[in-house]
Amino acid sequence: MIQRWAVKIEYDGKDYNGWQKQNNGISIQQRLEEAASQLSGGFQIPSITAGRTDTGVHAIGQVAHLDFPAELSLSAKKIRDGINYYLQPDAISILAAVQVDLSWNARFSAIRRRYLYKILNRPSPPAIEAGRAWHVKKTLDVDKMHAAAQTLLGKHDFTSYRATACQASSPLRTLDRLDVIKQHDHILFEVEARSFLHHQVRNMVGTLKMIGEDHWPIEKASLILKGKDRRLAGPTAPAAGLYLKAVDYKLDIFDPEILGISDIN
Amino acid sequence: MIQRWAVKIEYDGKDYNGWQKQNNGISIQQRLEEAASQLSGGFQIPSITAGRTDTGVHAIGQVAHLDFPAELSLSAKKIRDGINYYLQPDAISILAAVQVDLSWNARFSAIRRRYLYKILNRPSPPAIEAGRAWHVKKTLDVDKMHAAAQTLLGKHDFTSYRATACQASSPLRTLDRLDVIKQHDHILFEVEARSFLHHQVRNMVGTLKMIGEDHWPIEKASLILKGKDRRLAGPTAPAAGLYLKAVDYKLDIFDPEILGISDIN
Repeated sequence: MIQRWAVKIEYDGKDYNGWQKQNNGISIQQRLEEAASQLSGGFQIPSITAGRTDTGVHAIGQVAHLDFPAELSLSAKKIRDGINYYLQPDAISILAAVQVDLSWNARFSAIRRRYLYKILNRPSPPAIEAGRAWHVKKTLDVDKMHAAAQTLLGKHDFTSYRATACQASSPLRTLDRLDVIKQHDHILFEVEARSFLHHQVRNMVGTLKMIGEDHWPIEKASLILKGKDRRLAGPTAPAAGLYLKAVDYKLDIFDPEILGISDIN
Repeated sequence: MIQRWAVKIEYDGKDYNGWQKQNNGISIQQRLEEAASQLSGGFQIPSITAGRTDTGVHAIGQVAHLDFPAELSLSAKKIRDGINYYLQPDAISILAAVQVDLSWNARFSAIRRRYLYKILNRPSPPAIEAGRAWHVKKTLDVDKMHAAAQTLLGKHDFTSYRATACQASSPLRTLDRLDVIKQHDHILFEVEARSFLHHQVRNMVGTLKMIGEDHWPIEKASLILKGKDRRLAGPTAPAAGLYLKAVDYKLDIFDPEILGISDIN
């Protein structure tokens, strides 16, 4: 018998080779499964995630599910604090854990992914935020970037904005939100969709930056879209600025009021 | 002939042995003076700072002045970008540079220091903010902490809140602001005074935390003050949560509108 637990995860992607387990370098998934295995006393604990983030990409609200043997009689608090204990001193932290049905799947039950992309827009390099923002020295025109961003909303063939190595069967995606917001020295991109193509957010940001520095006019963003050719778009923005902010499900499983899990704090 | 330049500095204190040059470990001051020396072509460039922060303490608005030989004909942009160039890849960044009179002194001309102390108040350890906040698992009562903080405002003998090793000649200080603010998972302490005793901010935060977790009543903060004995106060809060946020001068030298230094961006 299996017990399925959903976990909300924060990590600093700087020192990891992305989410997915692989032969070269340490991945978030590997560290999570190792810690879960230690907590379980040595069982292999497989995980499925809502978003397989790339090398260097961060998360403040990643969601995954882990399948534990039911015999362990775990609690939400044990899962959260126990995995966190075995994760030390890694830059990965379980923020919450909730037991879910076996029909629930962190990847396939997700109805929306929300990403944040952060540019530090000032002449001086980041000291506090090194590795956690894209440093752009030249002042960008945020209004132009936001205007261009709005032309990408809706259902489109995003071939021009996906990595050539992207393995999704269809290049069609529906972009629900792409707001470009100035906040002191920062430019924040709030991006939402049911799902994204590989590198889609970073390629859109890389293109909008070209518009923000007046290399390209506002119209270029949608012209690139219509061209359906990756070579038309701007360079891929660095991983350091990207955060998986949240994953939404039909039921907000991490809302304590819904599940009465007030005991886990 | 000497040219004096004031610089505004950001740093992540995690990897440094504090501001001041010393025999063990790398200090911010050492790296700043080394980079300034490289920029000058090998001169020794002495510096004076507004706040000699301790090991592990951060800054987002530290101020120092540097004395360069006038013959170098430096500009604000050269100072900022040149020092930043030689500082790479250190977690230290010059945010702005302004030429000042020789009568101006980063330490003695300062009329106010503003500190920020950051607690991450949640059960899960920090992943993104590791080393840049004090992680406190138990939920703290922010209202009680703020109420206690207000009893410390004004001019007092802060003997109870200063490090026993503090070398200031007088324990009298005037505390102008100590606001305790809840912001999602964070508790922020905004602290302002003309000057502080050694460890004063961290000792006040350590004491307020004891009140926030209901170990002590609100009144204890002022009782400790009146007792004039360091042993009465709470433990020193960790350096990781402390940020030197800003230093104020009679004239806001870094305000571009005052000095017409719009060219430096």
